[in-house]
Amino acid sequence: MDQSTASPEERQDADLPFDVFSKRCPSRGLLEHATGRWGSLTLGALYEGSLRFNALRRRVDGVSEKMLSQTLHALERDGLVHREAQLVNPPRVDYELTPLGREVAERLLGLIHFVEGRMSEVLAARERYDAAREV
Amino acid sequence: MDQSTASPEERQDADLPFDVFSKRCPSRGLLEHATGRWGSLTLGALYEGSLRFNALRRRVDGVSEKMLSQTLHALERDGLVHREAQLVNPPRVDYELTPLGREVAERLLGLIHFVEGRMSEVLAARERYDAAREV
Repeated sequence: MDQSTASPEERQDADLPFDVFSKRCPSRGLLEHATGRWGSLTLGALYEGSLRFNALRRRVDGVSEKMLSQTLHALERDGLVHREAQLVNPPRVDYELTPLGREVAERLLGLIHFVEGRMSEVLAARERYDAAREV
Repeated sequence: MDQSTASPEERQDADLPFDVFSKRCPSRGLLEHATGRWGSLTLGALYEGSLRFNALRRRVDGVSEKMLSQTLHALERDGLVHREAQLVNPPRVDYELTPLGREVAERLLGLIHFVEGRMSEVLAARERYDAAREV
């Protein structure tokens, strides 16, 4: 984009070292981990408090063991989730948000509560869209 | 979850008619359209103003024509994006956010700018994670 015609917001973006709109920027991978199908629900669930794997799996309704495990590994590597293994028998592992993860989860929950609150509008829009395409 | 031990936030969630944590709730599909790999970037790009298909495709770096087309259809059906076809020759189609799409995009951009601004912490966390697993 021509910077001479860029809006103030675009110029601000250009000054940032990271830009999710660029396919090579590592921030895009982070955004995908945090907002992906299971990442957003995992972060939202952990915002309520630390949880063990099976409790987390029940809260994130529909996630498979494998997908939850992959999601947690990615979020742990990004520094958003902390994995705490306790040396007890039977072994006990808790997952909790890091301070950075908490800040991401807050913003995600803002979006989640917003879309939950406006779903009736969305359902009406879907009905109008489908009705306009019926012959 | 036992409601008698639920936090105030959880009880508030239980009163909402829609809940993304439930796999059958239609709000989960909306969240996925809005935060998916291409949905979030499409909404973020259109927040700057209406765009034609090819301009949008350049802004959402890396998206294929097919994926952008699918993304726009889903967002249009949800009532977040408006498609404006002008009867000119050659045909011209503009995409713009609806008022509801604008509110979703605002929250998404809040998250996007936040993660862009904290990427150096995330990169450091990834390095620590990988180093701890090297033999």
